[in-house]
Amino acid sequence: MRDVMITGIGSTAFAKHEGRSIESLAVEAGNAAILRSGLERHEIGAVYFGNFVAGPLLGQEVLAGIVADELGIGLVPCTKVEGACASGGIAFRHAVLAVQTGQCDAALVIGAEKMTHASGAAVTSALNCAMDNRSDGPSGLTFPGLFGLTWRVHAAKYGTTRDDVSAVVIKNKANGLKNPLAQMGAVLTNDIIRQSAPIADPLQLYDCCPVSDGAAALVIVAADRAKSGADVPIRVRAAIQTRGPARLAGNEDLVSYPATRRAAQLAYEAAGMSAKNIDLAEIHDCFSMAEVVHSEDLGLVPRGMGAKWAVEGHTHVGGRIPINASGGLLSKGHPIGATGIGQLYEVVTQLRGTHNNQVKNASVGMAQNVGGAGVAVTVSILERSDA
Amino acid sequence: MRDVMITGIGSTAFAKHEGRSIESLAVEAGNAAILRSGLERHEIGAVYFGNFVAGPLLGQEVLAGIVADELGIGLVPCTKVEGACASGGIAFRHAVLAVQTGQCDAALVIGAEKMTHASGAAVTSALNCAMDNRSDGPSGLTFPGLFGLTWRVHAAKYGTTRDDVSAVVIKNKANGLKNPLAQMGAVLTNDIIRQSAPIADPLQLYDCCPVSDGAAALVIVAADRAKSGADVPIRVRAAIQTRGPARLAGNEDLVSYPATRRAAQLAYEAAGMSAKNIDLAEIHDCFSMAEVVHSEDLGLVPRGMGAKWAVEGHTHVGGRIPINASGGLLSKGHPIGATGIGQLYEVVTQLRGTHNNQVKNASVGMAQNVGGAGVAVTVSILERSDA
Repeated sequence: MRDVMITGIGSTAFAKHEGRSIESLAVEAGNAAILRSGLERHEIGAVYFGNFVAGPLLGQEVLAGIVADELGIGLVPCTKVEGACASGGIAFRHAVLAVQTGQCDAALVIGAEKMTHASGAAVTSALNCAMDNRSDGPSGLTFPGLFGLTWRVHAAKYGTTRDDVSAVVIKNKANGLKNPLAQMGAVLTNDIIRQSAPIADPLQLYDCCPVSDGAAALVIVAADRAKSGADVPIRVRAAIQTRGPARLAGNEDLVSYPATRRAAQLAYEAAGMSAKNIDLAEIHDCFSMAEVVHSEDLGLVPRGMGAKWAVEGHTHVGGRIPINASGGLLSKGHPIGATGIGQLYEVVTQLRGTHNNQVKNASVGMAQNVGGAGVAVTVSILERSDA
Repeated sequence: MRDVMITGIGSTAFAKHEGRSIESLAVEAGNAAILRSGLERHEIGAVYFGNFVAGPLLGQEVLAGIVADELGIGLVPCTKVEGACASGGIAFRHAVLAVQTGQCDAALVIGAEKMTHASGAAVTSALNCAMDNRSDGPSGLTFPGLFGLTWRVHAAKYGTTRDDVSAVVIKNKANGLKNPLAQMGAVLTNDIIRQSAPIADPLQLYDCCPVSDGAAALVIVAADRAKSGADVPIRVRAAIQTRGPARLAGNEDLVSYPATRRAAQLAYEAAGMSAKNIDLAEIHDCFSMAEVVHSEDLGLVPRGMGAKWAVEGHTHVGGRIPINASGGLLSKGHPIGATGIGQLYEVVTQLRGTHNNQVKNASVGMAQNVGGAGVAVTVSILERSDA
């Protein structure tokens, strides 16, 4: 298969974009990515669009075609893909495959979501589309509830404390302050977190990502077609997608996700690398505890140490393996369909050495995107093209 | 790229499946397809799921992973794709690509929809997710309204009459009577149709497909991996996807769809064929007038003659180019995400020579699936593997 690169990238801020349509957010990001790729619009041979809840929350589907039309792209295949909160990562993988396998020489991937206009109840109901609503849904479980349970199991197995988990929150909120695209950076302390509202015990307010609007986009191009005028190309070394159990009862254990373990294994194999090669990672921290378990499943942090490594500074910028230097979902925000693409945008910026919260000498970066309670996972590895 | 075959196929009846879940319909079709492929479940390397409105109508997404889990498939990539009413055709193309390009040796594609439990208003609102709701939606236009307009333009340009269009309806309703999977076969006459309720003038009741539940599935396998014990393999000669204008105002003309014309051209090129090679076609007749304009765009019927050829019997079984021998959407039904897969199920059955409404000596068949007002189109060409 052909070697492929990410060239142009674009993103709106992840924020509350009052009065803007999902199409306008997607077009802004997509247009920026195309302009920075140096490609002409007619050179884009496929469009993949990651989105999760525009149907229930906006009454709008076929966004792949609608946005491609507005961007002036040709009559090429335009596909929305959905895998709950992993929709962006899945869209990226398909754009990569389209170029790798020679379907086209360049593809555009866009992820977008518009959520902040909806009521809290409507958002919760839409997000619960990611559960199996014959089993987990009727149990009354919500995603905060799930990660509250996960926390309890992690605490019982590994002795993880409130302050351990707070170290993840404090790190990501501080990282977000350095990211101009982030929705909710903050300077937090253990005390502030302890005093925040309970959500799903032991999860508290700052353990949860905000509801967000936003869009991000990347242009994927065959390595031999990258334009000289474009932004520095970044090589795609792996773009893996897996599924996991659809119901919680299908998991042996709430503190490890089979789909992430499998995706990580396949991604390392595809890249010819191990966890030791990863210089930074963007991990799907929809909740503080999610970063903890995912970082362990990815092999980046020893089992049981996901939170304690934040306490010790190992997952900070400057530490052994910086995680969510962007602020992550907790701080940057989580416009569902855009999230996976936004993670890759951050990794690309790091590998170009132009991030506001730069990891020194970063050559290889990873992004992990999770749908539902692990029913869909993507793990991607990117590398500097001069590495 | 590798030669690929369709082996196992499965389908529920397209019907009002009261009290059944979308998952149970999808599992029934998927399981049948796997069993008839001769493959073991662990040999399925990818799952694509075509669905349009399970989010708004059922509050359920991530169906690709949920259904794969229930089918006992491995931790492989499972992806829902969406392109409105073309979701099934798009899912098929991606399953074909996964095998053609060597991502895996076998892939399962399932399309499913559950709609009949919802109110008419909820269904209309869900279907309108296929429009650009910044422009066409607020105009008050619905899809019946669109095809009413299309009819008026076709009548003005080509002199098409009520009885000409009725010939399409009578043919498809009669074909449906021979199809055990069809929801609404009927013996109709010009008088019965003329006396039926107006829907969106000049469209009347029998010009419109029913609201349906159902699922269909196909197993796609590399030609050199087809099992000897499986049902007769059918070769995929083309699986093309295009986009068209997202808004009606983007069309020059309501009686021709750029996305269909382009997809047909690419499909004929991919197969090394022309319209003359096609022995039968399943065409997206969500409304009678849709069959008319699509059959012309595909080059199967001379421009302006889509309805008159039905009057003259040319599109009947036994005629020059049998169209919708299955009954089509008008008669077989239109469970949106399943429709495109159901069309291919019908073509496969015809090419195996085992259809209840068999086209004699059928070697090559076409299926065309349309999303929205032509914003997404797929055209596929299948051929008998001994041809």
